[in-house]
Amino acid sequence: MTDPTVVLQASQPKLEDLLRQIVKLLEKHRLVETLVERDQTSPRHQLIESLVHRQHVVELQLKLRSLHPADIAYILEALPQDDRLLIWRQIEEERSGDVLLEVSDAVRNALVETLERAELLRVLEPLDADDLAALAEAVPEPVLADVSRRLPTRDRDWLQTTMAYPEDRVGRLMSQDVLTVRESQNVEQVLRLLRGREDLPLNTDSLFVVDARHQLKGVLPLRALLLNDPEQRVGELKLTDPVVFDASDAADDAARAFERYDLVSAPVVNGRGKLIGRLTVDAVVDFIREESEEDALNRAGLRGDEDLFAPIWDSARNRWLWLSINLCTAFIASRAIGLFEHAIAQIVALAALMPIVAGIGGNSGNQTTALVVRGLALGEITSENKGYLVLKELGVGLMNGLVWGATVGLFAYWLYRNWQLGVVMAVAMLLNLLLAALVGVAIPLILHRLGRDPAVGSSVLLTFITDGMGFFIFLGLATLFLL
Amino acid sequence: MTDPTVVLQASQPKLEDLLRQIVKLLEKHRLVETLVERDQTSPRHQLIESLVHRQHVVELQLKLRSLHPADIAYILEALPQDDRLLIWRQIEEERSGDVLLEVSDAVRNALVETLERAELLRVLEPLDADDLAALAEAVPEPVLADVSRRLPTRDRDWLQTTMAYPEDRVGRLMSQDVLTVRESQNVEQVLRLLRGREDLPLNTDSLFVVDARHQLKGVLPLRALLLNDPEQRVGELKLTDPVVFDASDAADDAARAFERYDLVSAPVVNGRGKLIGRLTVDAVVDFIREESEEDALNRAGLRGDEDLFAPIWDSARNRWLWLSINLCTAFIASRAIGLFEHAIAQIVALAALMPIVAGIGGNSGNQTTALVVRGLALGEITSENKGYLVLKELGVGLMNGLVWGATVGLFAYWLYRNWQLGVVMAVAMLLNLLLAALVGVAIPLILHRLGRDPAVGSSVLLTFITDGMGFFIFLGLATLFLL
Repeated sequence: MTDPTVVLQASQPKLEDLLRQIVKLLEKHRLVETLVERDQTSPRHQLIESLVHRQHVVELQLKLRSLHPADIAYILEALPQDDRLLIWRQIEEERSGDVLLEVSDAVRNALVETLERAELLRVLEPLDADDLAALAEAVPEPVLADVSRRLPTRDRDWLQTTMAYPEDRVGRLMSQDVLTVRESQNVEQVLRLLRGREDLPLNTDSLFVVDARHQLKGVLPLRALLLNDPEQRVGELKLTDPVVFDASDAADDAARAFERYDLVSAPVVNGRGKLIGRLTVDAVVDFIREESEEDALNRAGLRGDEDLFAPIWDSARNRWLWLSINLCTAFIASRAIGLFEHAIAQIVALAALMPIVAGIGGNSGNQTTALVVRGLALGEITSENKGYLVLKELGVGLMNGLVWGATVGLFAYWLYRNWQLGVVMAVAMLLNLLLAALVGVAIPLILHRLGRDPAVGSSVLLTFITDGMGFFIFLGLATLFLL
Repeated sequence: MTDPTVVLQASQPKLEDLLRQIVKLLEKHRLVETLVERDQTSPRHQLIESLVHRQHVVELQLKLRSLHPADIAYILEALPQDDRLLIWRQIEEERSGDVLLEVSDAVRNALVETLERAELLRVLEPLDADDLAALAEAVPEPVLADVSRRLPTRDRDWLQTTMAYPEDRVGRLMSQDVLTVRESQNVEQVLRLLRGREDLPLNTDSLFVVDARHQLKGVLPLRALLLNDPEQRVGELKLTDPVVFDASDAADDAARAFERYDLVSAPVVNGRGKLIGRLTVDAVVDFIREESEEDALNRAGLRGDEDLFAPIWDSARNRWLWLSINLCTAFIASRAIGLFEHAIAQIVALAALMPIVAGIGGNSGNQTTALVVRGLALGEITSENKGYLVLKELGVGLMNGLVWGATVGLFAYWLYRNWQLGVVMAVAMLLNLLLAALVGVAIPLILHRLGRDPAVGSSVLLTFITDGMGFFIFLGLATLFLL
């Protein structure tokens, strides 16, 4: 249950107001700091300033204390690094672990980097095994080992189990806190058991039924406890047909299943059917959001999760891999032009027209790729319908090629009053759009087959081909028919 | 509670197997149809074939009957239009409404278009007001009016209320089925009330406490009923501090709040604080996924939700708006080249080098834009930190400009043994990267200020500027210093 003194923000505008208030407090704080520095000679003045200073810090701390960790995380993410650290230092120590859990990967890494080992240990101490598993990527190996050594044996074992799964597997997203019952218990007994607890784990909509060897027997929804006679035995109740995940299932599949069947929680078993954890909708929602944001950034060539307010040097390096790949492809495409320099020297108009052929090919191919990438993610593309898809996209390419080829052909004729140039332009456009349709389907399919994420590399490969081949086809046709 | 005869598919591979089985059944079915058509003269042969045929249909129907509506929806989405209709006709009539609810917008529109009015009415009849609200966009106005006339008055009023909100508001996503209690009731009374019901609405993790005028007083979590003494009054229980949404709140904000606070359900009130509905995590998950998929398609220039297996003509038209916009910008950029045809005629190398300057500018600007678009979506960019962000991106642009400018300059020198050409190339690159950083921040901010979605138009506008200006800067500098 949420602490009732903590204010929850239902909407973004209210969150943004909150951010503005904090920024104002920070400004006051900094103003005072400057004054204190300026006037270090007068001890009395200094004392007053220092009191005012302390007052602002207290105001800031009170404000932060009234906020949910997720809202503090939001504020940290929206601040430049210096202000971020200033705020971080004002968070109560026993809550700073929760805040660390809520911030984005990029901000978490930046914060962990600045913390001293002892400080980091203090922050991590109040966290349980679930939380530590979530933070494991960001925390240096030896620190994590230190913290986990202080955990009870059971928790330490569990931490090792979950950490053994790769990041994109259910085993890594699951949580430890499962409530189990036996088939032989009756509703009254289960209710009494629950009343003995202080609280239920977050998102508990069902209890898991297990046998003596902890093998999963079924799922008992909480509402069955509310709706049924206290005398009834668990084994007799109509249990929901459970969706059970194996810890080695892909997290993305599990997210889809949560969506399809509107799940709130589901049991996770190991390869031998033993119940080892629980997957809950909050972890799934976070996973879906993170995946989609990461995809959007990756598509533009940013690795992982770049911090909006990262230092310039870090940001620049984060973008170099992508830019250097693009530079290589641009160089190669430029060599396709270099092959035809004699043609351009004779008909300079070719230089002005060639980017149009290449550009529209890229746009059209990217449309196809976007559709195929989504279809692959949804599992809608199978060996049975692949052929159909290629034919369909070639059909679309043909139709677009005729329409837009004619348009650009007429444009070229109108501009240069040379009908042969117009025809070459139209034919080059048609061929490049057909090529774009073909590689627009093929590239994501091939990347997928190779086990790579088609959302990431498809666009740069496609643009490389439509650019290079666009130049080559257009200038080649021009050389054949115009010179 | 899910019907226990329905098989749920935990993972994508299993779903894909299912699809394969269905496709095989369809193939048998079609094979028989072809045989029957070929051999229409022999009545006896025909009879046998028709029996075999019927057997396949029954097999198909049995298979479909064992599937969850969401899984049937998945199969429909992965089939070309003809096969899709064949499957659709085999779904039991009382379940086809549920399937219609689960398919993607594009497939839903395609199905509704092919259904006759009377058929559509029969499909919609078993649905409640919540379901009809979800389908409203796809169903023709008069049919919807017809169906809603048969609803009880209360449901009809509710349908009108929810439909009055725009598609991106909480009022449109909320559901009608709220369970309310009074502060004066005690736990035992509430439990008895619940036991009197056959089932609880999906995702009920809490009951809403209201007064006599249906004003929301608080939220009572179900677990409080399980954990507390039956004698305790609802008013005395520690209620969770509720996140309450106004029906006019943005759906996107609400989704963020569900994420931040790990909600399963939350009350929705109208402007006067009256409880009018309930927002649940399943609606939020669907909303998040649809939004992120739509964004990905929009970014590539596809409107809304294109059906992967749509007819060629529909697909081609769906892509024309984007291609024509890109064609216009490509024409204009090409005119920037046209201005300098005399320079290219004298130094043909310029034609081969200019796409590099333009292309890397576009890539680099798109990285900036992707970060800013995400920052805007998360509300991390405020009037206070905008200036900082521009400076930071200019810094990154400067650093990248120096590194990559020097690289391409050396490349140009190595290729053409002309150091002036190398210097012009390097300076043009630097300038275009600085420009890309500036407009990469500015374009999404301006679109956002104008109330438009920065995820959609930013990239095409940015590429237009980095292309056009890239050509202009490079050829302009070449004209000034090389001729």
